Amino acid sequence: MAWKIPVSTIDRLSAYMRALDKLRLDGMETVSSLQLAELSGVNSAQLRKDLAYFGQFGMRGIGYEIESLLKSLKKILGVDRKWKTVLIGIGNLGSALLAYPQFKEEGFEVVGAFDNSAGKIGKKLKKVKIRDIKKIEEFLKKERIQIGIVATPAEVAQEVADRLVKGGVKAILNFAPVSLNVAKGIKVKNVDLSKELESLSYFLTKKKTI
Amino acid sequence: MAWKIPVSTIDRLSAYMRALDKLRLDGMETVSSLQLAELSGVNSAQLRKDLAYFGQFGMRGIGYEIESLLKSLKKILGVDRKWKTVLIGIGNLGSALLAYPQFKEEGFEVVGAFDNSAGKIGKKLKKVKIRDIKKIEEFLKKERIQIGIVATPAEVAQEVADRLVKGGVKAILNFAPVSLNVAKGIKVKNVDLSKELESLSYFLTKKKTI
Repeated sequence: MAWKIPVSTIDRLSAYMRALDKLRLDGMETVSSLQLAELSGVNSAQLRKDLAYFGQFGMRGIGYEIESLLKSLKKILGVDRKWKTVLIGIGNLGSALLAYPQFKEEGFEVVGAFDNSAGKIGKKLKKVKIRDIKKIEEFLKKERIQIGIVATPAEVAQEVADRLVKGGVKAILNFAPVSLNVAKGIKVKNVDLSKELESLSYFLTKKKTI
Repeated sequence: MAWKIPVSTIDRLSAYMRALDKLRLDGMETVSSLQLAELSGVNSAQLRKDLAYFGQFGMRGIGYEIESLLKSLKKILGVDRKWKTVLIGIGNLGSALLAYPQFKEEGFEVVGAFDNSAGKIGKKLKKVKIRDIKKIEEFLKKERIQIGIVATPAEVAQEVADRLVKGGVKAILNFAPVSLNVAKGIKVKNVDLSKELESLSYFLTKKKTI
């Protein structure tokens, strides 16, 4: 069933997970769909629709049992386990990503960092050794890595993606401002930070016209 | 009419804009809804539904006139003009954002960079002077800035947001891993990079179960 689910639903599952985690840390045990929807920034009809793709959650008059829904969402999103990842391109953005604490908290551990600059190769950053990009394929195969994070300049991103795929990576998070061509069956998620600003300029523009 | 439009529609408008821009650079003049949808990674029913929120676009049998649709989308998203922004927190992430070429290309220019570190204040990065966070309110008012980008550690992000709002900022792009409390009418967009990885782990998990 899972293959017809909209991408936006998956994005919202992450938001529900964050909200549930916060409620759990606050010591709550149950939450109404109205409350959970509000905390996640959606309406409750949307929340119920999203969850309905994956089964029957919640009880009439009580709402959702927080621990149990959280566990289900983690399983659905595949974050009930650890994922080893590699990060390629250790410039400003790559260094920031290597230090991004949420990745590890969510179970995505950067176990290898790669660059092509002689000045960086061999050094350590956040306890991760920076390795030569030329040696990435063997590393990927040895460590059986499925997720690669590309933070290189646009000009070399395709070459890096080719190496990742050759090494057995199945999913790429791409920060380089270029579309990557990959074989069918490989998933690429492009992070487009301008898009985020555009939703703000939309809001500011709309505001004036009301 | 615009205030009932889903956030996901706005995100997709950005994707349509990117695809149209690419087609325009390739010298194309028209595009079918099927082609445009495919290039944007959605289905064509979704594309038509999204555009229908904003008016009547496209002609039966011809498709969309690229220049004209691009112009309309830019106007809707508010990127047919320049936006002056400030960036707060000039660590690795802030430095990467200051150098992110797409912001300027899309009309979002960082005109002020702020930090609280004496070692950084007064220096220049990418031709932008790094200023003292304590002086941000007067800068915001003088330059009439509406958009602020927060790339500080979580601990100081709320204080920074308060300063931004006091200075007249109406929209905040927040990279700090913390929810910001702001007055009603101020828009905060949180960038959550773990979410992007979660959609990949969802894909990898799902893949195995088919």
